[in-house]
Amino acid sequence: MLPAVLFDDWLKNALREDLGTGDITTEILVPAGLWGRAEILAKETAVVAGLEVACRVFRLLDEAVVCRFLVSDGMTVAPGRILSVVEGPLRALLCGERVALNLLQHLSGVATLTQRYVQEVAGTGVKILDTRKTLPGLRILEKYAVRVGGGVSHRASLSEGVLIKENHLRACGGIRQAVEAVRALCPQLREVEVEVTNAAETKEALEAGVSRILLDNMTLDDLRSMVSLVRGRATLEVSGGVGLENVRCIADTGVDLISVGRISHSAPGVDLSMLVRDVWDPSSK
Amino acid sequence: MLPAVLFDDWLKNALREDLGTGDITTEILVPAGLWGRAEILAKETAVVAGLEVACRVFRLLDEAVVCRFLVSDGMTVAPGRILSVVEGPLRALLCGERVALNLLQHLSGVATLTQRYVQEVAGTGVKILDTRKTLPGLRILEKYAVRVGGGVSHRASLSEGVLIKENHLRACGGIRQAVEAVRALCPQLREVEVEVTNAAETKEALEAGVSRILLDNMTLDDLRSMVSLVRGRATLEVSGGVGLENVRCIADTGVDLISVGRISHSAPGVDLSMLVRDVWDPSSK
Amino acid sequence: MLPAVLFDDWLKNALREDLGTGDITTEILVPAGLWGRAEILAKETAVVAGLEVACRVFRLLDEAVVCRFLVSDGMTVAPGRILSVVEGPLRALLCGERVALNLLQHLSGVATLTQRYVQEVAGTGVKILDTRKTLPGLRILEKYAVRVGGGVSHRASLSEGVLIKENHLRACGGIRQAVEAVRALCPQLREVEVEVTNAAETKEALEAGVSRILLDNMTLDDLRSMVSLVRGRATLEVSGGVGLENVRCIADTGVDLISVGRISHSAPGVDLSMLVRDVWDPSSK
Amino acid sequence: MLPAVLFDDWLKNALREDLGTGDITTEILVPAGLWGRAEILAKETAVVAGLEVACRVFRLLDEAVVCRFLVSDGMTVAPGRILSVVEGPLRALLCGERVALNLLQHLSGVATLTQRYVQEVAGTGVKILDTRKTLPGLRILEKYAVRVGGGVSHRASLSEGVLIKENHLRACGGIRQAVEAVRALCPQLREVEVEVTNAAETKEALEAGVSRILLDNMTLDDLRSMVSLVRGRATLEVSGGVGLENVRCIADTGVDLISVGRISHSAPGVDLSMLVRDVWDPSSK
Amino acid sequence: MLPAVLFDDWLKNALREDLGTGDITTEILVPAGLWGRAEILAKETAVVAGLEVACRVFRLLDEAVVCRFLVSDGMTVAPGRILSVVEGPLRALLCGERVALNLLQHLSGVATLTQRYVQEVAGTGVKILDTRKTLPGLRILEKYAVRVGGGVSHRASLSEGVLIKENHLRACGGIRQAVEAVRALCPQLREVEVEVTNAAETKEALEAGVSRILLDNMTLDDLRSMVSLVRGRATLEVSGGVGLENVRCIADTGVDLISVGRISHSAPGVDLSMLVRDVWDPSSK
Amino acid sequence: MLPAVLFDDWLKNALREDLGTGDITTEILVPAGLWGRAEILAKETAVVAGLEVACRVFRLLDEAVVCRFLVSDGMTVAPGRILSVVEGPLRALLCGERVALNLLQHLSGVATLTQRYVQEVAGTGVKILDTRKTLPGLRILEKYAVRVGGGVSHRASLSEGVLIKENHLRACGGIRQAVEAVRALCPQLREVEVEVTNAAETKEALEAGVSRILLDNMTLDDLRSMVSLVRGRATLEVSGGVGLENVRCIADTGVDLISVGRISHSAPGVDLSMLVRDVWDPSSK
Repeated sequence: MLPAVLFDDWLKNALREDLGTGDITTEILVPAGLWGRAEILAKETAVVAGLEVACRVFRLLDEAVVCRFLVSDGMTVAPGRILSVVEGPLRALLCGERVALNLLQHLSGVATLTQRYVQEVAGTGVKILDTRKTLPGLRILEKYAVRVGGGVSHRASLSEGVLIKENHLRACGGIRQAVEAVRALCPQLREVEVEVTNAAETKEALEAGVSRILLDNMTLDDLRSMVSLVRGRATLEVSGGVGLENVRCIADTGVDLISVGRISHSAPGVDLSMLVRDVWDPSSK
Repeated sequence: MLPAVLFDDWLKNALREDLGTGDITTEILVPAGLWGRAEILAKETAVVAGLEVACRVFRLLDEAVVCRFLVSDGMTVAPGRILSVVEGPLRALLCGERVALNLLQHLSGVATLTQRYVQEVAGTGVKILDTRKTLPGLRILEKYAVRVGGGVSHRASLSEGVLIKENHLRACGGIRQAVEAVRALCPQLREVEVEVTNAAETKEALEAGVSRILLDNMTLDDLRSMVSLVRGRATLEVSGGVGLENVRCIADTGVDLISVGRISHSAPGVDLSMLVRDVWDPSSK
Repeated sequence: MLPAVLFDDWLKNALREDLGTGDITTEILVPAGLWGRAEILAKETAVVAGLEVACRVFRLLDEAVVCRFLVSDGMTVAPGRILSVVEGPLRALLCGERVALNLLQHLSGVATLTQRYVQEVAGTGVKILDTRKTLPGLRILEKYAVRVGGGVSHRASLSEGVLIKENHLRACGGIRQAVEAVRALCPQLREVEVEVTNAAETKEALEAGVSRILLDNMTLDDLRSMVSLVRGRATLEVSGGVGLENVRCIADTGVDLISVGRISHSAPGVDLSMLVRDVWDPSSK
Repeated sequence: MLPAVLFDDWLKNALREDLGTGDITTEILVPAGLWGRAEILAKETAVVAGLEVACRVFRLLDEAVVCRFLVSDGMTVAPGRILSVVEGPLRALLCGERVALNLLQHLSGVATLTQRYVQEVAGTGVKILDTRKTLPGLRILEKYAVRVGGGVSHRASLSEGVLIKENHLRACGGIRQAVEAVRALCPQLREVEVEVTNAAETKEALEAGVSRILLDNMTLDDLRSMVSLVRGRATLEVSGGVGLENVRCIADTGVDLISVGRISHSAPGVDLSMLVRDVWDPSSK
Repeated sequence: MLPAVLFDDWLKNALREDLGTGDITTEILVPAGLWGRAEILAKETAVVAGLEVACRVFRLLDEAVVCRFLVSDGMTVAPGRILSVVEGPLRALLCGERVALNLLQHLSGVATLTQRYVQEVAGTGVKILDTRKTLPGLRILEKYAVRVGGGVSHRASLSEGVLIKENHLRACGGIRQAVEAVRALCPQLREVEVEVTNAAETKEALEAGVSRILLDNMTLDDLRSMVSLVRGRATLEVSGGVGLENVRCIADTGVDLISVGRISHSAPGVDLSMLVRDVWDPSSK
Repeated sequence: MLPAVLFDDWLKNALREDLGTGDITTEILVPAGLWGRAEILAKETAVVAGLEVACRVFRLLDEAVVCRFLVSDGMTVAPGRILSVVEGPLRALLCGERVALNLLQHLSGVATLTQRYVQEVAGTGVKILDTRKTLPGLRILEKYAVRVGGGVSHRASLSEGVLIKENHLRACGGIRQAVEAVRALCPQLREVEVEVTNAAETKEALEAGVSRILLDNMTLDDLRSMVSLVRGRATLEVSGGVGLENVRCIADTGVDLISVGRISHSAPGVDLSMLVRDVWDPSSK
């Protein structure tokens, strides 16, 4: 699990977003002293991701809540599988339910979809990478879910690496000039990546000595040409237009990395539910 | 557009998330004084949602940026259509690009999927509702996108209405007792909704005088029975297991409202891009 | 009690506001290791509200503090009654005293005044409602205190219901047009309320089918006319110029609800004090 | 006016508190392009305080709003007097109305009540002081309103001065020991104040060389004795049980300062209203 | 120690600043279940300050961490001295190390340098004061460190006292007019300080009755003249150009206070390190 | 300049820290309508860094302030040189002075000291790097100042690169095992750095194939041995015990990079001042 200091305040905001000025149904119907035990269940096959983060929601509502985890992140679960048993003041269970499930279903969705891509390219040695195409506020968690699903993390932000894209090149002449500027100003950077769209740019990038080339929206034939052209002198990354239907073909061209935006921004949520199994009043025992 | 005070701080956090400690590529390659004009383009057919919110990102980076909107929220655009022309300091355009597109592609995805559901039930009088199954931090924007797509907003938070669900009933005896408790404590509430799973519960809810009944995960046959049973004495809302493939059949049973979680949490992002079309140095004119 | 996630950060801000850069008197005079036991006392008759919220201040300063509650929210206490015994590190007790008392005296003041209004209309069936005339930052707590005092909560914010007021009507023609616009855009809203100032507007509102009518600043005679006119076809709410001296007369006109701004914004604080009863050094035992 | 950096974030929170997820009535009824001009009016006699701060609310919603101030803080206004004319996008005027009025009515209430106390003691040379008995979050604004009303600010927080109270003395022996501890640890502090409840403590405080003595909850006779006893060797401040009915008698005993908690925590709000006077569509001109 | 509510959020920000999106080295190399015991050591002679505050970092990462303090703030330690033993989940120790050390080395640097100034003026009765020349965000901690080193705190912010400087005088005529304005508007202020640069201004300040005079950037001869001129009728504070090499000479002129900006903004950090001494897996015991 | 969204909120906090509840001296002495023009001057030779960031403080207080920059970041200035002329409402100039100067003197101090290190190693090809030993909250600004001074930025946070240190090795066996774990879990990472303390570890690191080796606290003889041993197969970075007196000797050993903690945490502040040169009342013109 990531350090809680990275997301606790964000989780509290998510709780406030869902509580509004308070959960009036629960306040009316559930006495403050009542305790309960609830199960979080998978309703479809999925790769679990974010279970501990999601269940932290309950503890942020009430420190008396205890969560038991029956599976761990990265495990594939079948429908009906209990992921976690959550026990504590019933109000906290009911107030936190939706936020916990919303988060868990999304992160598990990301991990599940990522794993399908990873399985498609199994045996090719190609790595599936995430992108910066993440939902606002969710980046570190979505990237965590990608890793849980077997993917590999690209840079987490614009400060973690140089990636020269088409829009940058309009401001600085050409690939060679851009790479030289990076070298001059950040001599300690070992990795410089450039986005290219054709063979000429690829050659220019190679000649400029870049270590990694991003092949954007190319056909399979083009990709194969680029692999021949580069012959291992730079890492080749493919992005754009990658789907489950074509990712294997792309991998088979011999490239090294495939980055896929839709594993984060378009992963369908996994169907989950939380059921209260038992309710009791500790003071009456 | 929603009042900016509701999301400006959230947008700034999204920018900081993407910038990390700064966009090193742009800082190296783009001189501070350079200006540019960029176009935001649709790359597939979509219902636009969140265009003004997304473009605000650029102005939060630099107040000198000016955005011109060529379409407005709710319009359906074809691939290649320019949505907005953004002009200003080039660094601000490049630093804000990803956050603006991430948000716009998601909200437009929500609106586009919502509209497909709305179109499926056209002519039935049934309304498509959103749910609280939204991504953490994104609720008001996702619910806005649902409305843009022709859907109708359910309660925005747990404080905006009473909805008695199965998990609540375990704590308070039964539907009748629950509804009575709500009446006693919140006599001014006109709308009380109860989730039911069978005919007996539906009758109990009717007898308790609830104004709205949530039919959870029922078969089409069951839904038809419930419509006959209730005969307009309460609004009937369906939820659970609703997809594009069955939403019309559900609507045809005669229910009033269908709430669909996947229009928010599982809407695929719309493919968009931003292209810098022109670059100049205002000081050299 | 409301979930602490809704107000803990706000309480911490209140503490920082009162501490400035630190309580220099206490730091100089009270050794860090000393413990104490203090009593929070009523100095006048009052309805208690916010006792647990207020005492949470001490625990936010030091988790070692333990609060025992001798009364609970909603109870009426006489002068001299001990409300709570707070025990823990003496520095935390002294540093938190003022914030805890400021909050408790205000919320109890709101509950006390609300109860007086509620008692005035006892037997009439009329409900006393709060308003949005609350002090900035204090809305959920003041509305909670109103409920503790026997009042009923009106909408918590502008997003929780449609209330068409005079200033809105200037932008949209008239009551009928406004109600139709609401119906068209928010068909699922069961409750629409309109503010009226005379019989003509009341009729227009009735004809438009609104479920609730706000009678603003009317004379008792006018109110009686409106009750006759409406004959139960809509809920009638009175607001404006309501005081303890006339609230019973208003209630006797036959209206349903009376909303009173001054129970939140003008409730005099209840006189309270905190006395340290015992001081000891746990390490020397 | 105070620097806006001290309260802008707080005002934005107040707006979010009132907007919830958005002002649905205004969004439905008021087109985004419409402009309006509104007047803020006094409905009873009052000392105005916080007018610029309150109207800043509108500009935080929309920078296009322009506020004209027809009176300024500290002026006494009669019923019907226009305080400010606010012009701009009508949605911003309607969305901000309640927050602006809530703040203005409270701060003007504080200034108005303060001025009555100040007028009661006119000619005696006695100063009316505020206290730390302020509503959480509102301290700097309430203290500002006290100054507008002619009062004088006591310390703004626990870090701005040493005030040794009864509860401190329980931890450190007695007045002499306490004052010596302060002198030893904070030799640069010129002002040390001690709370006393009888003549013996007053003497002890004088002998310890304190510059200011807080006479807590004493009778008029006691106060006169203390004035005789001290004979100008320390500033005498009275607190506790001070009301409009007895403040003059207290002042006439010859003390120097009277601090009054109720001018901040129990000031009744001033009755105000905002009326939209004109509505137009700038694009149609 | 200061109340944690004053700096916990700030410490969490410092942790987030150092963690970025997570400590990838530790996540890869250190299993989540492993525990460790680490020592924080001095590597040079220093006055310790901020030990408890700094070690709180570990507990904010993981509440299971326990810190044992072998020295306390204000003690002088020799190289090799163990300051604290920190035991808990190893990931928390490694993730928090840098932030804890960064803070501790700076605050101890401030205390160490302050103490050298204090020792230089030993026996003269002169007090060493801090200034508002602190690093942004660090004021209360740096001022705390100054007190730990034997210095005395000047005002913590612009609201804690009146200090009339050269730039103010340009707006209000002269010293006499400025002091009169302060007296008129803040009659309760006992201490008014004025910055002067020559004998004429000093006389003007004395005649205006100020209680404290700030002698800015004067020569030793000038200081001696000012001491003769003032003869105890006001406290004399020196500031500007004070270093370890001349502070004793300044103190010997007979002034009362010397304020030194460089003890906060230019104190060299103390050399410290943290060594993990033991690592174990609690679950395997 | 860095994007303002990265530090504006931090600057506002710095302002609130210095303002407390308001600048009472300025509020009393400077009428709200008065304008002024002030110069920010160097009082000693320095490399300027952070000039635009620091002057942004004034604009955050009042948008009417205009700053003219007479030098830019990276320039070396002599005593007396005017860095910036700031013109606007005088209150904003006086309220912001201290925060602006505190920030500018620190960042310029960092740049100035960095440049001295860079000049010491001139001609050797060695780069001076910063570290994570920065003051809490100031990292991105201090690292920016290092770059302004000619230094090169090491990783900005724990998420931007793998650096295996002694404390990590205690948890994972040895260098080889650690590097293998990194390779297995983060195959896309091109740069892995390991801290070593002797020749054996250096060999182990080389054999494990690390691209960069951190030589911690070694003698000059040891460094020369390591350079011979490694012969360019990895980048060699020196850290620990680096001062101006020995940095050239270290550079001459043939290593590639020298990281220096004291350029950030122990840089003495540069002496600066702000002088108001002109004051006028725009309304009286």
